Amino acid sequence: MMPQMHLSLSLSLSPIKIFDPNSLAMENESKTHEKTGFITRSWDRFKALPGNIKAKAVEIAKKTKKIGKDDPRRITHSLKVALALTLVSLFYYFKPLYDGFGSSSMWAVLTVVVVFEFTVGATLYKCMNRGFATFLAGTLGVGANYLTSLLGEEGEPIALGFLVFILTATCTFSRFFPTIKARYEYGVLIFILTFSLVSVSGYRVDKIIELAHQRLSTIMLGAAICMIISIFVCPVWAGEDLHNLVANNIEKLASFLEGFGGEYFRVLEDGDSDMVTKKDKSFLQGYKTVLNTKTTEESWANFAWWEPGHGNFGFHHPWKLYLQIGVLTRKCAFHFEALSCYIHSDIQATPEFLRKIQEPCKKMSLESGKALKELSLAIKAMTHPFSADAHLANSKTAITDLKTSLEAASGETSTDLIKIIPAVTVASILTDITKCVEEIAEVVRELSQEAHFKRVEKIVSKEKPPLIDRRSVNPVGDGGGEHVVIEVHGVLLESSENENPQAPKKG
Amino acid sequence: MMPQMHLSLSLSLSPIKIFDPNSLAMENESKTHEKTGFITRSWDRFKALPGNIKAKAVEIAKKTKKIGKDDPRRITHSLKVALALTLVSLFYYFKPLYDGFGSSSMWAVLTVVVVFEFTVGATLYKCMNRGFATFLAGTLGVGANYLTSLLGEEGEPIALGFLVFILTATCTFSRFFPTIKARYEYGVLIFILTFSLVSVSGYRVDKIIELAHQRLSTIMLGAAICMIISIFVCPVWAGEDLHNLVANNIEKLASFLEGFGGEYFRVLEDGDSDMVTKKDKSFLQGYKTVLNTKTTEESWANFAWWEPGHGNFGFHHPWKLYLQIGVLTRKCAFHFEALSCYIHSDIQATPEFLRKIQEPCKKMSLESGKALKELSLAIKAMTHPFSADAHLANSKTAITDLKTSLEAASGETSTDLIKIIPAVTVASILTDITKCVEEIAEVVRELSQEAHFKRVEKIVSKEKPPLIDRRSVNPVGDGGGEHVVIEVHGVLLESSENENPQAPKKG
Repeated sequence: MMPQMHLSLSLSLSPIKIFDPNSLAMENESKTHEKTGFITRSWDRFKALPGNIKAKAVEIAKKTKKIGKDDPRRITHSLKVALALTLVSLFYYFKPLYDGFGSSSMWAVLTVVVVFEFTVGATLYKCMNRGFATFLAGTLGVGANYLTSLLGEEGEPIALGFLVFILTATCTFSRFFPTIKARYEYGVLIFILTFSLVSVSGYRVDKIIELAHQRLSTIMLGAAICMIISIFVCPVWAGEDLHNLVANNIEKLASFLEGFGGEYFRVLEDGDSDMVTKKDKSFLQGYKTVLNTKTTEESWANFAWWEPGHGNFGFHHPWKLYLQIGVLTRKCAFHFEALSCYIHSDIQATPEFLRKIQEPCKKMSLESGKALKELSLAIKAMTHPFSADAHLANSKTAITDLKTSLEAASGETSTDLIKIIPAVTVASILTDITKCVEEIAEVVRELSQEAHFKRVEKIVSKEKPPLIDRRSVNPVGDGGGEHVVIEVHGVLLESSENENPQAPKKG
Repeated sequence: MMPQMHLSLSLSLSPIKIFDPNSLAMENESKTHEKTGFITRSWDRFKALPGNIKAKAVEIAKKTKKIGKDDPRRITHSLKVALALTLVSLFYYFKPLYDGFGSSSMWAVLTVVVVFEFTVGATLYKCMNRGFATFLAGTLGVGANYLTSLLGEEGEPIALGFLVFILTATCTFSRFFPTIKARYEYGVLIFILTFSLVSVSGYRVDKIIELAHQRLSTIMLGAAICMIISIFVCPVWAGEDLHNLVANNIEKLASFLEGFGGEYFRVLEDGDSDMVTKKDKSFLQGYKTVLNTKTTEESWANFAWWEPGHGNFGFHHPWKLYLQIGVLTRKCAFHFEALSCYIHSDIQATPEFLRKIQEPCKKMSLESGKALKELSLAIKAMTHPFSADAHLANSKTAITDLKTSLEAASGETSTDLIKIIPAVTVASILTDITKCVEEIAEVVRELSQEAHFKRVEKIVSKEKPPLIDRRSVNPVGDGGGEHVVIEVHGVLLESSENENPQAPKKG
C-alpha cells in the first residue's frame, strides 16, 4: 500500500505540475470548446482557492505533527544540524582571515551540510571517509601534479587527463564492490573529487600544499563540529536503533502468535464471536512491517560499526548477530503471511475435530509467542534469555500433544478430509513456526553470550513451568516439581557463571 | 547469508585494522610473554606475505571479473563517468578564463562527480534538484543578504545567523517527509548549502549576482555534460531496469512452481530419486532474491519518474503498477518460503494417498508456473497477457480435481491423519499460491491496458486449452472445442480493439 501512497502524494505536491504541458493543453481545449463554462469553473476554483490552500496547510501541519510525534528525535536532529551550521557560518563570518565567497571557508559549511546525518554512526562514517579520502587524494594529486609537470607544457594536460580518466574509471567501478559500497562509497566519491580538483588546479606544488592545508583544516573544523554535536547533544546511535528494531520486531511476532490461537479458534467460543471481532486486531497486522526491514537493518549495522562504544554497547559489539536474528525474524514473518490466509477463512471442520486440535494448537501458538516475548524483553534489558526456555519446552510439548490428538482423531473418524484441511494446514504451519522460534532463540542466546548480557534470573520465572521436557505430563498436577527444577536451574546458572568469569558484565 | 559475508569481507579489507588498538595490544602482550615465539611467527608471516598478497590479488581480480560479468553496464558506466570528468577537467584546464583552484571551475568538477549516477533517472533527479535548488537558494540568499544589510553592521550577522538557523532546521525536518525524501531530498540538501554559502558570503549584492551567474553557469555546464553522456552514451534506464526486474522476478516464481511438483512427488517416480537429486536445483532457490526487492523497486520507480519517454516507455508510463506487481510477487514468494519447508521432508504418507493427490497438485503447480511464465514473457515482450488465461483456468480446474480426489480419499480411508499432514499442507499452500498468481495476473492485465501493450495473439496459444471454465471436463477429449473458443477469443479481441482505438500502440 505504501508505495502507491507515496506516488500519489508526491504527484499532488510536485512543483513540476505547475509546468505540466498536459494540463495546459487541457485547459486550452476547454477554453475553445465551452468558454463560459470554463470561466465559471475557473471562478469557482479561484473562489475555492483560499479554502484549498487552507485545507492543504492544515493537512501539511497534521503530517508535520505526526512525523514529529512518531520520532521526536527528528526535531532534535533538525535543531542540531541548524546549530552546527549556524556555528560554522558565524565562525567564518567573524573570522578575520575571512576573504569572501569561494575561499576555503565554504568547505566548512559544505562539510557540515553534507556530513551531518541522523545517526552518530552515519555522521562518523561520512566524516571519516571525507577526512581520509581528502588527505589521500590530496597527497596523490600533488604527486601527480609534480610528476606530470616534468613532461612540459604540452605533455602535462594530456598526462593529467589520462590520469584522471584512469583513476575515475577505476574508483567508480570499485563502488560496485559490495564491501566498498557498504562502507567506503562516500570516501571513494570524495577521493575522485579531491584528486581531480587538485590535479587540474594547475598551481605550483608549494602553493597547492598551502591550499590543501587550509582546506583540510576547514574540513576538519566542520567535521569536528558535526561529530561533537552529533555525539554529545542528544545522540542517536545507529547501533541502539538496530538493537531496538530487532527487539521490537521479535515483539511484533510475539503479539501475533499470542493472539493468533484465540483469533483462529474464536468461532468455538460461546457465541460472542461478534464482540471478539470488534476487538482491536492490530496485533494481527503488526508483523507486516517486519517483512521488509532487511535494508534498514543492514545499513544500521554498517553505521553501528563506525560508532564508538557507548552505554551497554562495547566497541566490538556483535552487530552481525543482529543481522542473523533479522534474517530469522523475517523467515518467521514469511510463515505468518502464509498463516494469515487462514484467519478469516470459514472454518468448515466439525466442532468436534476442531476441539481436538484446538488445545495443542492454541498452546503451541501462545507458548511460542511467550517465548518470543521473553526473548524480546531479554534483548531490551540485555539479560540472558533464560526465561524463554520454559516456553520453548512447552511449545515442544504442545507439538507432541497435537500428534496424540491427531492420532486419536484419525482412529475414530469418518472425518471429511476436505473440511479439515484448513485447520490441519494451520496446525502444520504453526509447527514450522515453532521450529523457527527455536532458531531465533538459539541466535539470541549466542548474542547474549557474545555481547556479555547480564545473567540475572528474573523473579517472574518462578511462576513458570520448568525446563525439563515434560511431554505428556499434565502441567496442572505438579506444582512441587516446578519448585525443585527452578532450584536446579539456579544452581546451573551459578556454576556457569563461575566457569566463565568474564561473562557477567554489568551495563 | 549475504549480510554476514559482507561484514566478514569488509573486516578483512578494512583499513581501520591497521590502527586497531586491540590487535596492537595483543601483539604487545605476546611480545612480552613469548618473544621468540612471536619473532618466529612474525618471520613466518613475513615469509608468507608475498603468497598472501598474491592470493589476495587473485581473489580481488576474480571478484572484479565477476562484478563486471554480472552486469557489463557497470564497466561502461565507469568509463562514462571518467569521460565526463576528463572532459570537464580539460575544458577548464584549457579555458583562458581559468584562474586556478577555488575558482568557479571547481563547481563543474564537483557537479560531475556528485551528480553522475548509474541510471539516467538518478542522474536527472540529481541534476534537476541541484539546478533548481541552487537557483532558488541563490535568489533567496541574495534577498536575505540585502534585507539584513539594512540592519547595519551589528544586527546583520545576528539576523543572518537566525535566518540560517531557522531555514536549516525547517529544511532538515522536511527531509523526513516520505514524499520529499523520495524525490527532493538532494535538492533540499543543496538548498541549505547554497543558501548558507550565499548568505554568509558577506559580499555586496551586485558582486554576489555576478558570482552566482558564474557558478550557475558552471554547474549547468557540468550537469549538461552528465545528462548528455548519461542519456546518449549507452544509457541505463531505471524504468527499463524496473520493468525487467519485475518480469524476471515473476519468471523466478514461475521456475519454482514449474519445478516444485516434480520435486516434491519425486519419491513416487520409479526408484531413480538419486539421479533426480543430483539435478540442478537452483530453480528452487531463485525465488529467494524476490523476497527482498522492495527497496530496489521503490527507488527505481522514483528514478523512472524523472526519465523522459524512451523506447516503449512513454512519459506517463504507469510505474506505480510495477510496484503493485512487486508487492504481489513478494506475497507469492512468502508462500514459497512456507512451502519450501516441505520439499525435503520425509513424505510419510502412504503412496496410495500421495498418488491420489499427486496429479492435481502437480497440475496446479505446473499450470500456475506456466501462467506466471506467460505473464513474465508478456511483460518482457510488452504484449497483452492473453496466453496466461488458459493456464490460470487449468490451475483452477486442478483445484476442483484436488477436491474430488480428497473427497474420494476421505471416503475410503482409515488413513492415518498425522502421516498425511505434510502432503495436505503442501496442497493447501499450493491452492493459496494459485490465488496469488491470479492476483498477479489481474494487475499485469491492468498494466498491459494502461501502458498500451501490443495486442498480439501468440501462435503458441493455439496449442493450449481454451478460456472457459472446464472444471471436470477432461482436457484430452475436446480438441474441436478448443478451436472454436480460440476463434471466439480472436473476435472478442478484435472488437475490444475497435472499442478502444487509442489502445493498440506499437513500440
